[in-house]
Amino acid sequence: MSGDIIVTAEALKDFAARVFIACDVSPEHAKLWADILVWANLRGVDSHGVLRIPRYIQTLSNGNINARPNITVERRAGAIAVLDCDNAPGPVGMSRAMEEAISCAQQVHVGWCIARNVTHSGAIGYFAQIAAKAGMAGIVMIASRPMMAYHGGRTAALSTNPLAIAVPGGDHPPLVLDMASSAVSMGKVLEARDAGQTIPDGWALDASGHMTNDPNDAAILMPLGGAKGSSLSLMMECLVSIMGANPLIEQLIRPGADPSGFRQNGLAVAIDIKAFIGLDEYGQQVDDLADAIKALPRADGVDEIYAPGERGDAVLAERAQNGIPLPQGTWERLAEGAGKLGVAMPAVG
Amino acid sequence: MSGDIIVTAEALKDFAARVFIACDVSPEHAKLWADILVWANLRGVDSHGVLRIPRYIQTLSNGNINARPNITVERRAGAIAVLDCDNAPGPVGMSRAMEEAISCAQQVHVGWCIARNVTHSGAIGYFAQIAAKAGMAGIVMIASRPMMAYHGGRTAALSTNPLAIAVPGGDHPPLVLDMASSAVSMGKVLEARDAGQTIPDGWALDASGHMTNDPNDAAILMPLGGAKGSSLSLMMECLVSIMGANPLIEQLIRPGADPSGFRQNGLAVAIDIKAFIGLDEYGQQVDDLADAIKALPRADGVDEIYAPGERGDAVLAERAQNGIPLPQGTWERLAEGAGKLGVAMPAVG
Repeated sequence: MSGDIIVTAEALKDFAARVFIACDVSPEHAKLWADILVWANLRGVDSHGVLRIPRYIQTLSNGNINARPNITVERRAGAIAVLDCDNAPGPVGMSRAMEEAISCAQQVHVGWCIARNVTHSGAIGYFAQIAAKAGMAGIVMIASRPMMAYHGGRTAALSTNPLAIAVPGGDHPPLVLDMASSAVSMGKVLEARDAGQTIPDGWALDASGHMTNDPNDAAILMPLGGAKGSSLSLMMECLVSIMGANPLIEQLIRPGADPSGFRQNGLAVAIDIKAFIGLDEYGQQVDDLADAIKALPRADGVDEIYAPGERGDAVLAERAQNGIPLPQGTWERLAEGAGKLGVAMPAVG
Repeated sequence: MSGDIIVTAEALKDFAARVFIACDVSPEHAKLWADILVWANLRGVDSHGVLRIPRYIQTLSNGNINARPNITVERRAGAIAVLDCDNAPGPVGMSRAMEEAISCAQQVHVGWCIARNVTHSGAIGYFAQIAAKAGMAGIVMIASRPMMAYHGGRTAALSTNPLAIAVPGGDHPPLVLDMASSAVSMGKVLEARDAGQTIPDGWALDASGHMTNDPNDAAILMPLGGAKGSSLSLMMECLVSIMGANPLIEQLIRPGADPSGFRQNGLAVAIDIKAFIGLDEYGQQVDDLADAIKALPRADGVDEIYAPGERGDAVLAERAQNGIPLPQGTWERLAEGAGKLGVAMPAVG
């Protein structure tokens, strides 16, 4: 957009890391956290990019995110590992969880690591593609707190728990699925609000639990495909939070529940492809499949068909070349947060 | 319905097994196959029940389903196993796959079994709940042949690849999610056709690839939530078929493809809950969560909220008591198929 500030990925990463370091995050963790935020911006997922920084500054300062977590391995046995992340920044906890999963998979071909007590993890496709870059398939789930209706209900009962799956290609970048279990993200509702448009049936309920077409009244997201999305989200609570002995949902939706708290749980799975098939052959088949999808006859009005992750790959190619555009509003909120910390803004252009 | 024939579950299982035995299936495999079909009927999933038998008779006789498969374990290593199912009846192959997964999980806490060359597997929640009954979480995926559009495409490019997840409760029956990656099943389209109703946008395309509201013109199903459903289906092809060195989709959608063949691939995953948390505590938490979901404030017009699988549990309780109703049309098609094989129909009532 015409008023956007353009910043290179490197300058933006450096800036984000300096902010986190100013909030007492270790340089190593700050760099990792900055990397995933700017990865999201590079791929066009701006809702999970640096615009989150002002909120992270706040949650670091009130202790909901622990700047100096003591991440402990509670269990390692065969294919499984359990981490307690001590309310670490989500990307720090989930990157570590995927490393543990990959380590298990190097031994017994599958690794299944539950990370208890993580915090907001951002664009979770990032963790899945860590596995893909290691020649493995990666699966990531996050179980979080109520903000979506259960099918048939009219209150916020479940999170929009996301699922990511990544597999390596040969010449093609990894295919990456990263989907929430809601019909749409709150970001889409906010876009409609900003554009003065109505929203379709099935996106959101108002605060009293009635379906709304007015994005200004939207308070509770609706699940993807009704029962499918809410069941998928609920099963993630069972596979991730309850399995990790850190249940979230039941105690937040029971009558008289105290909605305070901030913790989430995550799951990172790695599958050792070469235990099944040669990695070169696997990559070749994925490439061929992606090519065949790209070449499918298109529906009316569709210019291009994208295999999972290809849309982000295309934005990344453009933004790596031309820089990341930040809306004025985002820039100003970043400047305000950084200013209080005495952190200089990134160079522009 | 008033014209339905009522048959007990036991009589229907016995009948189905006798049909399969008459088609040269071994008594052990026939019994297992009959059990899953009637399980689907008991739970109200009639589309995956005994109405499939006439089609199975046909595919057994033309060799697309192998009545006497030689199922071989191609690999067992750590958490993984690979089966070649030799075009076994799907339920035979997938039950065996889940047994292998459970066996791996007993050793290293996760089992991940790919079953190559299975055939139609029916209601795959059945295999997931085998794990739940063994005190494990179960995940099942099936990768099959094109019948659904890819997001942005206008041809049948992907299957409606289903995903099932089951976890054990304590007093509560297992929670079971069993969902296709399409917006709706073809069964829903056929229901609308029979009822003379239109279908909403987003359900199906006609044969020329245009969205249709006329169920009589519906030829290609549409993916759940657009890109989400088609990406999920595609990733199952990558995780199951390509990983199992038995890719299906690319060679069926490339220009000039030969659409013959029948094979599918499956994945059965078992996770050893007690490696993470006491099984009693796990079951208690699942029960509490299911109770809390049941007690949620309901949307207008909703009489009851169901945790995943509870709707089927309720139908099962009723049908186990009162018998399974079979529409006249189903009964007649069963009688025709059974008659040719010299198999007596089940006792009625």
